[in-house]
Amino acid sequence: MPITSEIINIGDELLIGQVVNSNASYLAASLNGVGIEVQRVTVIADRREAILSALSAALEKNDVVLITGGLGPTNDDITKHVLCDFFNSKLVFSQDAFDDIERMFALRRFPVTETNRQQAMLPDNCQQIPNSRGTARGMWFERNGKVAVSMPGVPFEMTAMMEQHIVKMLHQHFMSEFNIIHRTVMCTGVGESFLAEKIAEWENQLPECLSLAYLPSPGIVRLRLTGKSHDETALKNLMDKEIATLKSLVPEYIFADKDIPIENFIIETLTARNQTLSTAESCTGGYIAHLLTSVSGSSQCYKGSIIAYNNEVKINLLDVSEGLLEECGAVSEPVVRKMAETVRQKLQTEFGIAVSGIAGPTGAVEGKPVGTVWVAVSDGQVTVSECFHYSNDRIRNIQRSAVAALNLLRQRF
Amino acid sequence: MPITSEIINIGDELLIGQVVNSNASYLAASLNGVGIEVQRVTVIADRREAILSALSAALEKNDVVLITGGLGPTNDDITKHVLCDFFNSKLVFSQDAFDDIERMFALRRFPVTETNRQQAMLPDNCQQIPNSRGTARGMWFERNGKVAVSMPGVPFEMTAMMEQHIVKMLHQHFMSEFNIIHRTVMCTGVGESFLAEKIAEWENQLPECLSLAYLPSPGIVRLRLTGKSHDETALKNLMDKEIATLKSLVPEYIFADKDIPIENFIIETLTARNQTLSTAESCTGGYIAHLLTSVSGSSQCYKGSIIAYNNEVKINLLDVSEGLLEECGAVSEPVVRKMAETVRQKLQTEFGIAVSGIAGPTGAVEGKPVGTVWVAVSDGQVTVSECFHYSNDRIRNIQRSAVAALNLLRQRF
Repeated sequence: MPITSEIINIGDELLIGQVVNSNASYLAASLNGVGIEVQRVTVIADRREAILSALSAALEKNDVVLITGGLGPTNDDITKHVLCDFFNSKLVFSQDAFDDIERMFALRRFPVTETNRQQAMLPDNCQQIPNSRGTARGMWFERNGKVAVSMPGVPFEMTAMMEQHIVKMLHQHFMSEFNIIHRTVMCTGVGESFLAEKIAEWENQLPECLSLAYLPSPGIVRLRLTGKSHDETALKNLMDKEIATLKSLVPEYIFADKDIPIENFIIETLTARNQTLSTAESCTGGYIAHLLTSVSGSSQCYKGSIIAYNNEVKINLLDVSEGLLEECGAVSEPVVRKMAETVRQKLQTEFGIAVSGIAGPTGAVEGKPVGTVWVAVSDGQVTVSECFHYSNDRIRNIQRSAVAALNLLRQRF
Repeated sequence: MPITSEIINIGDELLIGQVVNSNASYLAASLNGVGIEVQRVTVIADRREAILSALSAALEKNDVVLITGGLGPTNDDITKHVLCDFFNSKLVFSQDAFDDIERMFALRRFPVTETNRQQAMLPDNCQQIPNSRGTARGMWFERNGKVAVSMPGVPFEMTAMMEQHIVKMLHQHFMSEFNIIHRTVMCTGVGESFLAEKIAEWENQLPECLSLAYLPSPGIVRLRLTGKSHDETALKNLMDKEIATLKSLVPEYIFADKDIPIENFIIETLTARNQTLSTAESCTGGYIAHLLTSVSGSSQCYKGSIIAYNNEVKINLLDVSEGLLEECGAVSEPVVRKMAETVRQKLQTEFGIAVSGIAGPTGAVEGKPVGTVWVAVSDGQVTVSECFHYSNDRIRNIQRSAVAALNLLRQRF
């Protein structure tokens, strides 16, 4: 019998459509990762009756119920009180929880208020789950071998709680003898359906204990191979073999055989090679710089960027001549090449990346529809460039252009 | 009595966390827009028993049930058959639906297969909803005055069906006289609990037809006031009055009385004032530039940025002297002020924003722990600066610093 679960997300903002429920997909992926099947996701309002009936139905049918939301310090947050009633607990003051709150406020130099003190009042029959990123602790309740866990609805706090505590606790509690192993291979520069055709034969011959999932995001396809077995060593060997075959089929599209974003791969590689990088961005408007600097340790190899959102800045800071801009336009091969070459020189780096394109929804010109993007990479000796044609979606075009630019650099390694 | 609804999303991909359920938030917003309250969102697998029990529970408690998913042409799509059983219908061939499928395939130059022909088999007691973007029609069932509508799970097809048909049909069917109005006030520069205390008295005196929700994200607290009444005009007046009172209580923290990100507010304001902006970023590494350039039309007022992730770049491109860097360090008031002043001059803009800080998790120095961030804004005559102390979380520090920098500019307006 598989261990089954339900996810309950509490929050009025979810029911009026103000917020997309990313917590549910995160929790579903985490539960599946430790071999717990998700039967249902239920989203309800911050209302006592709704919480009680959803929780009671969920616990009746499942082994695990994960609950998010309604733990904030304000009046509309009632989850803790409802859980108290459901599990026949009473709230008691937790010095340990309060110390955490005080520490967090001292760091931010905010005074601790009475409202915050209320967050240290916790049910007396739950196991408290520390919150490394906020003031509301999680609560782990057990009844007849079944488990209900309440977490904050803020994704940033909830995900830390899952990663640092709850995933491990769930695994321990259910003493799952099944080993579940995930391996991820990162692909870029190829569409999902084209990739699927290229590896269809391999996918079809996979043994029953292995399954493959395609997880696409703008510019990237993650291939996740999941294995389930009682024999961990045999499973690992089998998966190593299959991953090796996969890599031999489409080597040109694979940039990593672990689950890392392409910006992390770039930073890791440059750091290992002791090389430096700068960027010159027009239509991506700093998104490439943001991706690279989101990686801790990126200051080792990434020096900075000139964001030339405006033609004057291209002329004054990136030495693009007015004549060239008039003749070819800002979105053109010679301009993007010049941008890459200049930024590399000015910031004194081994590599320079540049992007110029029309993100949309406006800005199209004769012969250059929205979604036209030029990318270049210069290493001082050779400058390579490539043109891409995307859709009408501004944010997606920015994301795909950034990945394409980083991939062009990757191909130079 | 308000008209109530439930949303049922069918799809295994939602329960393994492969896909974020954006359909639910879209449908919730649409239902609220016509005065139909959403009581619950339920996500279930493509399984007969799960669909039957969710549908029957939802129809018992609500006036409307909107269902997405499981209408595709493949074997795992069973929704149509289950609905047929539930509503005691039988499938009949619809020439009209088939004509649509043929037309669509002719456009794409694909041959119509037997599988596609099956999609023209539809229940005999439902009203068919045309699908302008795909081959699966929607189905509108009625029973005892209640309504259940089944739609495809592909967002692109579902949203067209809602906009072109279902929203109007719902409004007609229920002739809802109940009005639900949401108003959002955007706050920044203040923590959720501190804000809650400041406005507690006001919140407590709100009449019963109004309710307040706190929706925090890094650096921002959205306050959402929801009103419900039969009398739309009276409700609007009441809400106007309460929002005015709220604004008078904490004017310094409020940047907008509609639901927009602070970067949109900045771009709107600068465009209206015909003023321009540039940025110089160190620890935020291009995130401010990215936020601003995510706004369509930002090229009107945002010229670009110098991302000086490295001290050399601060010296060479932002004219920060080596002596100043040695004496005060990169994360210091004089350095960040100089960065703001230089970028403003070099990019020839009315305003210059600069940020320098320690995003973490490493990089702390004596007297400057991780999370120390200096922000400056220069308008050529006056330069203002402020220091913030955040936590140990790199990504969140970047986000909060960016919002703080934009807020410092807002205070100059």
